[in-house]
This record gives sequence, C-alpha cells and structure tokens, in this order.
Amino acid sequence: MTGAVVGLLREALSERVDTDPSHLDDARADKSEHAAPGRPIAIVHAACIDDVQATMRIATATGTPVVVRGAGTGLAGGANAGAGEIVLSMRAMDRILEVRPDDLLAVVEPGILNAELNRALADHGLWWAPDPVSREISTVGGNIATGAGGLLCAKYGVVRDAVLGVDLVLADGRLLHLGHRSVKGVTGLDLTALVIGSEGTLGVVVGATLKLRRLVPGQARTLTASFPSVRAAATAAAAVTASGVQPAIMELMDAACLRAVHRMLDLPDPGEAAQLTIQTDGPAASVEAESIAATLTDAGGAVRLARDDAESQLLWRIRRSMHPAMETLGTTLIEDVSVPRSALPAMFDEIARIEREYDLVIPTVCHAGDGNLHPNFVFDAGADAAVPEVIWQAADELFRAALRLGGTLTGEHGVGVLKRRWLADELGDDQWELQRQITRVFDPQGILNPGKVFTP
Amino acid sequence: MTGAVVGLLREALSERVDTDPSHLDDARADKSEHAAPGRPIAIVHAACIDDVQATMRIATATGTPVVVRGAGTGLAGGANAGAGEIVLSMRAMDRILEVRPDDLLAVVEPGILNAELNRALADHGLWWAPDPVSREISTVGGNIATGAGGLLCAKYGVVRDAVLGVDLVLADGRLLHLGHRSVKGVTGLDLTALVIGSEGTLGVVVGATLKLRRLVPGQARTLTASFPSVRAAATAAAAVTASGVQPAIMELMDAACLRAVHRMLDLPDPGEAAQLTIQTDGPAASVEAESIAATLTDAGGAVRLARDDAESQLLWRIRRSMHPAMETLGTTLIEDVSVPRSALPAMFDEIARIEREYDLVIPTVCHAGDGNLHPNFVFDAGADAAVPEVIWQAADELFRAALRLGGTLTGEHGVGVLKRRWLADELGDDQWELQRQITRVFDPQGILNPGKVFTP
Ligand SMILES: Cc1cc2nc3c(=O)[nH]c(=O)nc-3n(C[C@H](O)[C@H](O)[C@H](O)COP(=O)(O)OP(=O)(O)OC[C@H]3O[C@@H](n4cnc5c(N)ncnc54)[C@H](O)[C@@H]3O)c2cc1C
Ligand SMILES: Cc1cc2nc3c(=O)[nH]c(=O)nc-3n(C[C@H](O)[C@H](O)[C@H](O)COP(=O)(O)OP(=O)(O)OC[C@H]3O[C@@H](n4cnc5c(N)ncnc54)[C@H](O)[C@@H]3O)c2cc1C
Repeated sequence: MTGAVVGLLREALSERVDTDPSHLDDARADKSEHAAPGRPIAIVHAACIDDVQATMRIATATGTPVVVRGAGTGLAGGANAGAGEIVLSMRAMDRILEVRPDDLLAVVEPGILNAELNRALADHGLWWAPDPVSREISTVGGNIATGAGGLLCAKYGVVRDAVLGVDLVLADGRLLHLGHRSVKGVTGLDLTALVIGSEGTLGVVVGATLKLRRLVPGQARTLTASFPSVRAAATAAAAVTASGVQPAIMELMDAACLRAVHRMLDLPDPGEAAQLTIQTDGPAASVEAESIAATLTDAGGAVRLARDDAESQLLWRIRRSMHPAMETLGTTLIEDVSVPRSALPAMFDEIARIEREYDLVIPTVCHAGDGNLHPNFVFDAGADAAVPEVIWQAADELFRAALRLGGTLTGEHGVGVLKRRWLADELGDDQWELQRQITRVFDPQGILNPGKVFTP
Repeated sequence: MTGAVVGLLREALSERVDTDPSHLDDARADKSEHAAPGRPIAIVHAACIDDVQATMRIATATGTPVVVRGAGTGLAGGANAGAGEIVLSMRAMDRILEVRPDDLLAVVEPGILNAELNRALADHGLWWAPDPVSREISTVGGNIATGAGGLLCAKYGVVRDAVLGVDLVLADGRLLHLGHRSVKGVTGLDLTALVIGSEGTLGVVVGATLKLRRLVPGQARTLTASFPSVRAAATAAAAVTASGVQPAIMELMDAACLRAVHRMLDLPDPGEAAQLTIQTDGPAASVEAESIAATLTDAGGAVRLARDDAESQLLWRIRRSMHPAMETLGTTLIEDVSVPRSALPAMFDEIARIEREYDLVIPTVCHAGDGNLHPNFVFDAGADAAVPEVIWQAADELFRAALRLGGTLTGEHGVGVLKRRWLADELGDDQWELQRQITRVFDPQGILNPGKVFTP
C-alpha cells in the first residue's frame, strides 16, 4: 500500500517526491523534544498550488494521512510525521506575490521565512508585525497555522490581527479563497480566523493576504530593571501596564533564567535578581522610556536606561540568549501558558510551588505585557529522548493552575501532540466535540494531521 | 402546533413570554426597509442564561425556529422574525458583570447598549472601541453577532479585535464558554472569532468578555476639507493614508450627501463639493492634524481646522446628520460595500456609472480610512414598502463592482436576508456549502435564524 501511494505521488509529482531516509527521519521531529514513532513514507516538496492539490487528491483517494510542514520549528510536535504519513512541505513555496504600500497588504506564499519577508517589506517602509523569536527560521504559513505570537504583540498584535485572507486547499484537493483584500468585511463566517491556529487540521495554507504596518518612525529605547524577586518584577510589570504607557516589548526573566544566561555569556552572577527588559518605540519613545523608568524605580527596581543603540543591543542579547542558555542546563520542555496580566504574580507563585513539590528547576521567561509565560522544565533526557512522566505531572499542575487563573494551556505554541491530552480540560467536552466535528466538515476522512490537537 | 409551543414557553418562562400583537409586529422589522412576512408566535424576554436555555430546549424539542434579537437596529434584516418563529430578545440581559482596569477587560451580558456600557467604562478611564454610528441604540450582543464596525475602526479596530471570549447557548440549549480571559491563547480552533459576525446562525451570545482600551489622553482635533469632486476627495484620503499619519476618523461625504445635510440643517448650498471630515486624537493630535491639513491642501482641498471643541462639534454634526438627511429624500436602501483603500476612487467611478445607467441618485458616505462605503439607494416606496426590483438590479451591479475590485458585499452590516442571494457570488459555491455545513454542526436542525445568511 505504502509503495503504491509513493508510486502515485511520483507519477503526479516526479522529482518533487523525496524518499531520502535521512530527510524522512528529519521530518519526524520539530523543535520540541518529541519525535513521531516510525518514519513517514515520503516528503512532497510542493512548488505550487497544483502540487498541493495533486498531493491531497492522492491522499484522499488512498486514505493516506498528510502532515503539512513549514520549517519544522514548532514546539508542540504539530509538524512531526510518522509511519504511513505523507509529509507535505511548503518550504519551497516562498515567493512574495504582491506588496501594496497604499493598501498596507502583501500577498505571499506560505513557505517564506518571516524574517525574509520582513527584510523585503522594509524596502517599502513596511513590516508584518508578528515576530516570534523564531522569525529567522519559521515560515509565515507555520506562523499562521500556529497563530504565532512574539515579543511585540502586546502593542502590535498577534497573527490573528495581521491576516486578511488565506487560500486553503482542502483534504480533497479543492482550493478555497477565504477572506478578502479589504480591511473590513463580514460576509458569512470568518473562516480566515478559524484557519489561524488550526495547526494543519483544516487544510493546507497555500497563500495569504497579510495586513501590514508602516515601519515605526524614530529610535527605539531600551531599559532594564532588576528586582529582588520574580514576584516583585511581575508586580512592577503590572504597574507599567496600569500606568497606561504601552511598551513595544516587556520581557521578564526570572532568577534561574538570568543566571543561566549570565553564566553562558560570562557576565557577573546576578544572584537572586529577576529582570524586566523593556523597549519603547515611536516618536514618543524617549518620553515613554523615562516614564516607565520612574514607574519601575517606584516599584523598587534598579533601572538602567540604555544610552545608545549599542547598549540596547547588549541588553537584548541577554534576553535573546535564553534558548541557548537553557540548552546548557539539560534537555528542556518549553511550556507556554497564558494568564490575565493581573494574575502574573499568582502564576509565578504557582510555578514556585510546583518547583518545590516536584523538586525541579523551572526557569521562566514571560512576555509580561500580555501575560504569556514560558516555563522551561529542565531534565536529563534518557536514551529515548522522551519527556519523563514526572515532568508531565508537573506540567499538568502548571496547566491546571493557568486554567484556574482564567488563562489557557497555550498562549502561542499550539496544542500539537504534546498538549492534546489537556485540550478537553480547557474546552470542556461539549466544545471539544463540536470543534472536532468542525474539522470533519473540512476533512471528512480525517487525513489532515491525524493524532494532532483533537485526538483523545 | 403554534399554540402548543406558546403553551410550553409560558409553562417554563411565564411572564417573560410576550404575545402582545403590536410587539410581535415590531419584531418583524429592523432598521432596514425589510419586514418578515407574517407575525412571530411569541417574544421571550430573556432575563438570564437559564431563560435562554429553556427557550432553546423547547425550540429544539418542537422544531420551532428562533430569531435572536438585540435592539433590532440591524440594516440587513437579520433580526426580523416572521410566521411560526419565536423571537428571543436579549435586550433585558443588560448587566455589566465585571470591569477589570488592570486586565483591560469587562464581562457583560449581551443586551447592554454599546453607549451605556461605554458611559460606565468611562468612570474607570476605559472604553470598548467598536463605535457603530448606532451605538446609542444597538446592543453589544448585536454588535458581536454582526461584527460591527464604526468610525474609529481604521485606528482602533472592529468588534473582532475587541472580544476575548463569548458564552454561547447552542440550538439544543447547551452552554459553551468560548475563548479566555488572557490576551493571548491558541488552544484549539478560534470559535470566538467564528461567532463574531455569525448573525444569530450559530447560537445565542449570552455573555461576552470584552477587550478594553484606556481612554485616549489629550484633546482630539477635527478638520474638514472640501474638494471639487468625490474622486478628488477619495484620492486625497488615499494620500493621507499614504502619508503614514493615522487619523482616528476619516469620513467622506459625496456632493449629494453633503447637499442633503446642508439643506436639512439650513446651511449654505455646498454645490458639487465633496467633503472629508477627519479627527486626530492622542498626545500628538495637533501635530497630526496640521500634517494632514498640509497633505489635503496639497491634494487641492479647501481645509478648515476646528479651533475648539465647539467648532468640532459643529463639523461632526454634519456627518452625524447623514441618516436623518437621507430620510428627507425618500426611502433608502443603505448599502455597505468595502474595498481595498486604493480602490476607493475606482469604486466611486462605478457608483457614478450605476447612477447614470439606472437614472438614480446614490448619495454615498464612506469610512475612507478603511475603504468601507455606504451608498444610499434612494427611492419612492410603494404601498408594500418593499425595495423595487430595479434598485436591487443597481445594487447587484454595485456588489459585483466591489468584488471585482477585491472587496466584499458587506463591510459591517452583515448579510441577513437582504444580501443572501449574493453570498455565494462572493464565497464561491464550495465555500458557501462548507460554511453552511459548519452552521449545521452548531445547529443540526437548522432552527437558528433559518432563511438568513445561508438560504439560497
Ligand atoms: C528558538 C525558538 C523560538 C520560538 N519562539 C516563538 C515565539 O516567540 N512565538 C511563537 O508563537 N512561537 C515560537 N516558536 C515556535 C515556532 O517557531 C512557531 O510555532 C512557528 O510559527 C512555526 O512555524 P514553522 O514554519 O516552523 O511551522 P512547523 O513547525 O513546520 O508547523 C507548525 C504547525 O503548523 C502546521 N503548518 C505549517 N505550515 C502549514 C501550512 N502552510 N498550512 C497548514 N498547516 C501548516 C503544521 O502542520 C504544524 O501543525 C519558537 C521556536 C523556536 C525553536
Ligand atoms: C442609524 C444607524 C446607524 C448604524 N451605523 C452602523 C455602523 O456605523 N456600523 C455598523 O456596523 N452597523 C451600523 N448600524 C447597523 C446596526 O446598528 C448594527 O448591525 C448593530 O450591531 C446591530 O445591533 P442590534 O442590537 O440592534 O442587533 P439586531 O438588529 O437586533 O440583530 C442583528 C443580528 O444579530 C443577531 N443577534 C443580535 N443579538 C444577538 C445575540 N445576543 N446572540 C446571537 N445573535 C444575536 C440577530 O439575530 C441579527 O441577525 C447602524 C444602524 C442604524 C439604524
């Protein structure tokens, strides 16, 4: 059967079909610590919409599961393909089809990298606001499929605020144009919004009309503030939000994070200090930075305001070194809960409790402007590289705490395989079932990313 | 059968069931020029979620259609109820349950009027941004169900940008909690977004968690600019957008509109002039107003910058008198197409063509900041008060022109009954069918607002 499917794919798509075993193995994993069991049967490197449609028609005719893949930088296992599955890679469809400065929109193929797109847009004085930390390595299609966030979203929005329309190939190969080029529009149901964050379960995003912004004028300003505890830092972040000044970025690193980064970069040991790193931008950047500095000083912080761009770069280097620094500590499960901003101090208390109860270190970085936390569960991976069950028990406590505080399991990374067992806890059984039925309207056979998101 | 249903409703909901014939007649129409044939069987004035659930259970058990109704100010006939239908009025559920300045959110019941909510929020220094011109008379639930827009949306967003979560009662009476209280969240499919703009076809919105903004500091500034033609005014509006300065409001009135308003207000005849009315706000309001004034002068406009609040009020009074002024001309069908901003001049050319070809006057007002036009088809209503077929033919040309220009049938008013026959033209047959199947997942019997939106 597998051989027959590969044969059909080759007949239709010839050299776009890849069965190199090492490539197939690569497609089993993303950037989470998870790999699918078994090896997928083939990778189709789609070069155009026709390729995608041909692949989906064959998949439908043969009942073969398809895992759509962007750059494979996901942190939830959503793009991981295993035995019996076709990998449909969108990475080669990476053209910018249109840029319209007058309408503040661009039409792109899904495989373009976020940063690559933004470099091209900068020539027009424009940018696409979603800025996942992975922007140099993740695709716009993947950003849409996960509903990605980033550092700038408290001020400039997430992916769902930045997409006007999506072209979608359904499981049976039909092509739909969702949304429109106008800013406003309420014709029928908002399927564009439904596709954003659907993690490859509704269809293949083969094109997108993106809502752009004009580059922000003026020089951005950066400041940091150190606090004796993460709770104090979280309370100070809330005070900034309450002051009514909107930072472009407001990141919080707890003591364990900061220590790990300082050690890696050979900087002095920060001890038990937690740190906020804040950026203001736009014409009022300096005034806002001074005002925030005053708020943070009042809240007990030791504030440092970067004098120039070079010093800013230095301060941001610390935040950007988070991921590599975590890798020096061991294997990490990067979590992604989100809570209402006022609940940040309480959420940090819960993390401290879980650290004590499970005897773990959970270095945590937080997009404090929007209440999205990334606790990093550090552990020694066994030979099978799997996340130990005790870590999942601790993560379970984390998820339940976030839900109790009015938050959510996942602020930006998605459910994928890693969080599917908690999905019904958040949605409730009725909504879970309803959502699953909606996926069946798009994909009656259930061949799109089976086992992801909705599988019990 | 009808009697039996009313009996069941009375048993469950006693004095909340209203069968006063004049009330029933009122529920046949909204603010469009359309009324449903026949008289609904009863109005349920829901006071709480239980009332809504009880109503829906009876409707499901008896297969009785239900038309959910907010304040009945819709312009697409969506809330109009006819023979054999139950009207479920949400107007009495009008409490504010929670306001959280620290989390910039409020939890409300759906029946509260938009302006009433905003008056209460102002005490906390907050506001909910969606500002339909009907804000004094329309409900938040109706705003959500239609995906309402308004004047401020180019700068501050539409309803879909301002809702974190929705509580929804399904056709069978089950209650779902969609969304969350955190700013970010990508758990499962975004059903909150799907419900926004669903016009009563997916369920009853019985509560909403709204995303608020802090009141904008500083004094707003107003300016107007007159142009010799509507095309010149539209081109000037595009120049403002291209200049990178973001007005809070940018409204365009063509000559026919302006003349009608001036006549009604006893102001001098403006002749063939078209006019832009613009507001800037925030700390940079004055700088931005001066910059826009310069752009408009360069574009050939005669600019007038209001010196004080009193003069501003006067300038806005002209824009706000649009609806009453249209009523002095005859009966109007208020249309609502939306196009990419760069296509505004071309869309005005199309309207001029349709006026010539059909020998009509189509006074048009336009939210120029986001490309949303409201052409007003003026006609003499016959005895039956129905829109004459020739007006629909002209409207048909209008819709097709908007679609050709990359736009949409309806920017903010919705499809309701009045635009359902064009829905498939915009969506395509495949997407139309898919959307309809999604409504069936929420409402398998098809008892929620039957005949609206998706009926062929
Ligand atoms: C160092 C690092 C930092 C990160 N920082 C952030 C961050 O700040 N914010 C954030 O949100 N995420 C972050 N991520 C996670 C990840 O980069 C994002 O989820 C990103 O959006 C995934 O894009 P991708 O192209 O790699 O998609 P993939 O990993 O290939 O796929 C992700 C999911 O989307 C689906 N998919 C991909 N493309 C398509 C398509 N064209 N059509 C339909 N479905 C598709 C896949 O099936 C899968 O379910 C980070 C990851 C790393 C490694
Ligand atoms: C003078 C005037 C100016 C206007 N200006 C604007 C404008 O600037 N922008 C704009 O967008 N609209 C405008 N409108 C149209 C109208 O006010 C909006 O569509 C408004 O959102 C309707 O709210 P409502 O409470 O009156 O809803 P209704 O008219 O009662 O209902 C509208 C639709 O929503 C559904 N619905 C209502 N409540 C619920 C609920 N709780 N749950 C589920 N479904 C529900 C109904 O079934 C119906 O399909 C204007 C109307 C008038 C008369």
